[in-house]
Amino acid sequence: MLDAPNNIPDVVIKRLPIYSRALVQILATRQRTVSSNELAMATGSTAAQIRRDLSYFGGFGKQGKGYDVERLLAAIREILNLNEQWPVVLIGAGSLGQAVARYGGFAEQGFVVRRVFDHNVDRIGMRINDLVVQDVREMAELVRQEGILVAILAVPAGAAQKVADDLAKAGVKAILNYAPSTIQVPDDVRVHDIDPVAALQSLTYYLTPSEAQARGVSHRVS
Amino acid sequence: MLDAPNNIPDVVIKRLPIYSRALVQILATRQRTVSSNELAMATGSTAAQIRRDLSYFGGFGKQGKGYDVERLLAAIREILNLNEQWPVVLIGAGSLGQAVARYGGFAEQGFVVRRVFDHNVDRIGMRINDLVVQDVREMAELVRQEGILVAILAVPAGAAQKVADDLAKAGVKAILNYAPSTIQVPDDVRVHDIDPVAALQSLTYYLTPSEAQARGVSHRVS
Repeated sequence: MLDAPNNIPDVVIKRLPIYSRALVQILATRQRTVSSNELAMATGSTAAQIRRDLSYFGGFGKQGKGYDVERLLAAIREILNLNEQWPVVLIGAGSLGQAVARYGGFAEQGFVVRRVFDHNVDRIGMRINDLVVQDVREMAELVRQEGILVAILAVPAGAAQKVADDLAKAGVKAILNYAPSTIQVPDDVRVHDIDPVAALQSLTYYLTPSEAQARGVSHRVS
Repeated sequence: MLDAPNNIPDVVIKRLPIYSRALVQILATRQRTVSSNELAMATGSTAAQIRRDLSYFGGFGKQGKGYDVERLLAAIREILNLNEQWPVVLIGAGSLGQAVARYGGFAEQGFVVRRVFDHNVDRIGMRINDLVVQDVREMAELVRQEGILVAILAVPAGAAQKVADDLAKAGVKAILNYAPSTIQVPDDVRVHDIDPVAALQSLTYYLTPSEAQARGVSHRVS
């Protein structure tokens, strides 16, 4: 049993799942040790940052020998509580919600969508795999009863805050937010926003419109 | 026309779309100026960070008066090249790819999915809205011909690197990567990874398994 290091900065915590993902792939090739350079390549990071981040764990890297893949992976999984199964509620059964409910990657990693809610009567009762969409008015009560801590929000921007308020009151502590709006939550609730449009918008900064225009592919719209 | 500031740090660029998103919502309420405190509330940031980030733009905030919403929004949109329309290719027509192709939010913001590719013969020829899934072997040639700079990757982890290599060679400069693996690209290509499982994994760090176990909702799987 590892002593859980305290006060790991949030930015490091956000990178740990990426290291874990890469270590799983490396382990699958039966490679036993990995250098910070190799791990940097596999994660799009730098060797210096890897070493700095992993120094919070202590004792897994030996000068010139690299990290023991299996032990490092086990340590990261322990730190991130990835050896648990986490029941999840999903709110929103539109096309995104349906894709989330059908995506096998969550359950594989211990995040099992247990219930799906929507407010739309056309969707309530709809079957998605082995789940039946329930009325969002039943959400708070069921989340509380079942002690569910993790929620995925796949509702329109305008509905996100109200649903998040209800989830927080019902005891949810972690929200993956697909709604394209910022939600306010109490201090003991963590939110991770996924906004693919915002992601694309931060990428186009690096494109030169003039170049695109020269190639005839970009059209000014205002 | 605004002088585009140079050398804005990547972390600031990543936050600008979130400010833009909030400013659009604020503008919709007919509010004309916004303080750094209000913008912090609306974006989950801090007033100090907002002021620091927006200082790169210069001249939009007056001491005690806040920012002119419309001018600040226009400046951010200009910086991020959001007044352009960007044709996009989507690779992968599985359930995630289909959800991406059907999602209206991309086109609303100027990212128009022009072509969808897959390698699976069962999917090639399939219709998604007004798009027909094409053979991925036609991808490089069409991307090059049409000068497309932006791609969305919705393929399995194992296929991502090969597709990214082909995209980069064909001239793509910005990739939104939904595949749960890190891809290596030339220096002039930007990648933004979206991995919802990794996002959830960074959230469970903050949950105490013991608490969850006491509530009977967490089950150790190893």
